[in-house]
Amino acid sequence: MGKVATTEALRFMTDCLKAVGTAATAAQQQADLLIEADRMGHPSHGLNRLEFYVNDILSGACKPNNQPKILKENASTAWVDANHVLGATVSHFAMDLAIKKSKQTGVGWVTVKGSNHNGMAGYWSKKAADKGLIGMAFTNTSPLLAPTRSKKSALGTNPLSVAAQGSDNEIFYLDMATTAVAVGKIEMKMRNGESLPKGWAQDPEGRETQDAELAYETKCLMPLGGGEETSGYKGYGLAAMVELFCGISSGSNYGHKIRSWSHSGEGGPANLGHCFVAIDPENFAPGFGDRLTECIRHWRQLEPSNENLPVLAPGDKEKKAAQITDENGTVSYVKQQLDSSAALAKKLSVKPMKIVNY
Amino acid sequence: MGKVATTEALRFMTDCLKAVGTAATAAQQQADLLIEADRMGHPSHGLNRLEFYVNDILSGACKPNNQPKILKENASTAWVDANHVLGATVSHFAMDLAIKKSKQTGVGWVTVKGSNHNGMAGYWSKKAADKGLIGMAFTNTSPLLAPTRSKKSALGTNPLSVAAQGSDNEIFYLDMATTAVAVGKIEMKMRNGESLPKGWAQDPEGRETQDAELAYETKCLMPLGGGEETSGYKGYGLAAMVELFCGISSGSNYGHKIRSWSHSGEGGPANLGHCFVAIDPENFAPGFGDRLTECIRHWRQLEPSNENLPVLAPGDKEKKAAQITDENGTVSYVKQQLDSSAALAKKLSVKPMKIVNY
Repeated sequence: MGKVATTEALRFMTDCLKAVGTAATAAQQQADLLIEADRMGHPSHGLNRLEFYVNDILSGACKPNNQPKILKENASTAWVDANHVLGATVSHFAMDLAIKKSKQTGVGWVTVKGSNHNGMAGYWSKKAADKGLIGMAFTNTSPLLAPTRSKKSALGTNPLSVAAQGSDNEIFYLDMATTAVAVGKIEMKMRNGESLPKGWAQDPEGRETQDAELAYETKCLMPLGGGEETSGYKGYGLAAMVELFCGISSGSNYGHKIRSWSHSGEGGPANLGHCFVAIDPENFAPGFGDRLTECIRHWRQLEPSNENLPVLAPGDKEKKAAQITDENGTVSYVKQQLDSSAALAKKLSVKPMKIVNY
Repeated sequence: MGKVATTEALRFMTDCLKAVGTAATAAQQQADLLIEADRMGHPSHGLNRLEFYVNDILSGACKPNNQPKILKENASTAWVDANHVLGATVSHFAMDLAIKKSKQTGVGWVTVKGSNHNGMAGYWSKKAADKGLIGMAFTNTSPLLAPTRSKKSALGTNPLSVAAQGSDNEIFYLDMATTAVAVGKIEMKMRNGESLPKGWAQDPEGRETQDAELAYETKCLMPLGGGEETSGYKGYGLAAMVELFCGISSGSNYGHKIRSWSHSGEGGPANLGHCFVAIDPENFAPGFGDRLTECIRHWRQLEPSNENLPVLAPGDKEKKAAQITDENGTVSYVKQQLDSSAALAKKLSVKPMKIVNY
């Protein structure tokens, strides 16, 4: 592991995106999305993703300097064509629209087509929560999830996220893939030579497997809930719901029609679909923030089954990770990540990322 | 098991509700909600619930002839006080409002306080789907779900449902509790002398248990996803999200503040919270219904891991059950249910339900 000043990692990511032709604002916005994931303890969605975005720009699949465009609009809705810009660019555009509409009518519901990967879903719902709204964000992704009983995948990890601000600086923050786990967790088990818990992944024959290496190779994840007996069809249903809000509504690629996400940027434009929602709780009962904070604190003080493992409220893990990052002023990366970033710096003629301690 | 003509079961339920003073329309609406659950293969939410509603009326906790009232309104939102009417009465009222608003602004989002149990969540989202909209319905319920790591429950089974109509008469229908399973499934395992799968339920010490009898007695369910290693915190997060939309938004009772649901109608007004959403897909890309149907049919034709277990689309189980019910013209009930209905008929001086074959 090596440590990098948070500001330096942000600078490096911005520079790399600019080096492949991205205008300053778009580069900064995308880099901020990535650093937030590293900051909140989700490194899979941070610097780790940078090279994918860079390659998508180099291949022409992503066109960072295009402009997103509203195709249809109603008092509470908008349908947006991302025009193949970076995920952060169109997600700001679309969530800003949803926020504006929710301030007027109570709700904003915006769907997006023609987009690229837009990072950590919670970043977008939190953007609305920071304005005192209930924020929600959904996106479809490349197929990885096997519908219950299916041998093969047909839906993405399709994350959903919800965030809302309570009183006294508490926040409700839920950001979850609708698969049981992400591929990254399988990779970790494999590296540690451990076997997988039941309910995570399938083998090439569509059977549940606990063999981490085989699961990593197969890349066919089980939905949240695992097998049929433990209601995995609910996770499958949730992934399908996310697709309903994203690709099926927006007319982007959807489900089985989405390209495999390759490191090399092959396969043409991703044409992903997103959905952004903002709801103003001021339209309902007074005291929303107080009730939310009362709940969050009630959950935290519940007696735990194991006294060493306190009960957490949704988002506590991320909050804690962000606090530690901010106290240290640094983010940590594995050696492999630092090496590939150094190589990327060289390839793009960008000033390499300065490592504080290695 | 005994068979009862569907129309006769509906008549009986309507009569029982009328016998305790419910006006005709409210009684019919509540009875229709119950028969639909029996029809679609969810007997736990059908006739099985009738006596709970009757007792809540007899105890004065439910006031079936009150009128729901709009407390606050915006172009796309409404905040409604159910005024302790039956769940069906206010749910029709609130979903009709959401539907109307969605036709005007694109979205309707309505929260309800002061309500009673409103049956099968999918009934309400389907009401919007039948109008060509994306419908969603959420409700909070009495505490049964243990947040991840917690010894005791603090949230309800908090169901969420989503429905939408595809072209060519296909429907997307998702109706799911955010616990791994309902208490009824544990009861079935117990009756069959089987042990439980992992991830369903906890014992009084907050440990996962596979002892069906102990689990049934403890009534402390694990969230969708089961234990922490299989991401049960996602199911916990979803249950909390449903509470955010229902009690925390509407100012009804919420989470740990909801009474235990007793058969006897004790504990005062339930004061439950619901949330109803309608979104008009016409505001997004043309071809919504075709894409939805293409997906549904793609999922169904996926190669299954076990050739005897075909892959289903969300809602296929319910669709099939409803078809069979309609073909037979009858619903089936277990002996215990028929006996308690006969006793209820006697108690309320209502014409007993005619059993076709026993």
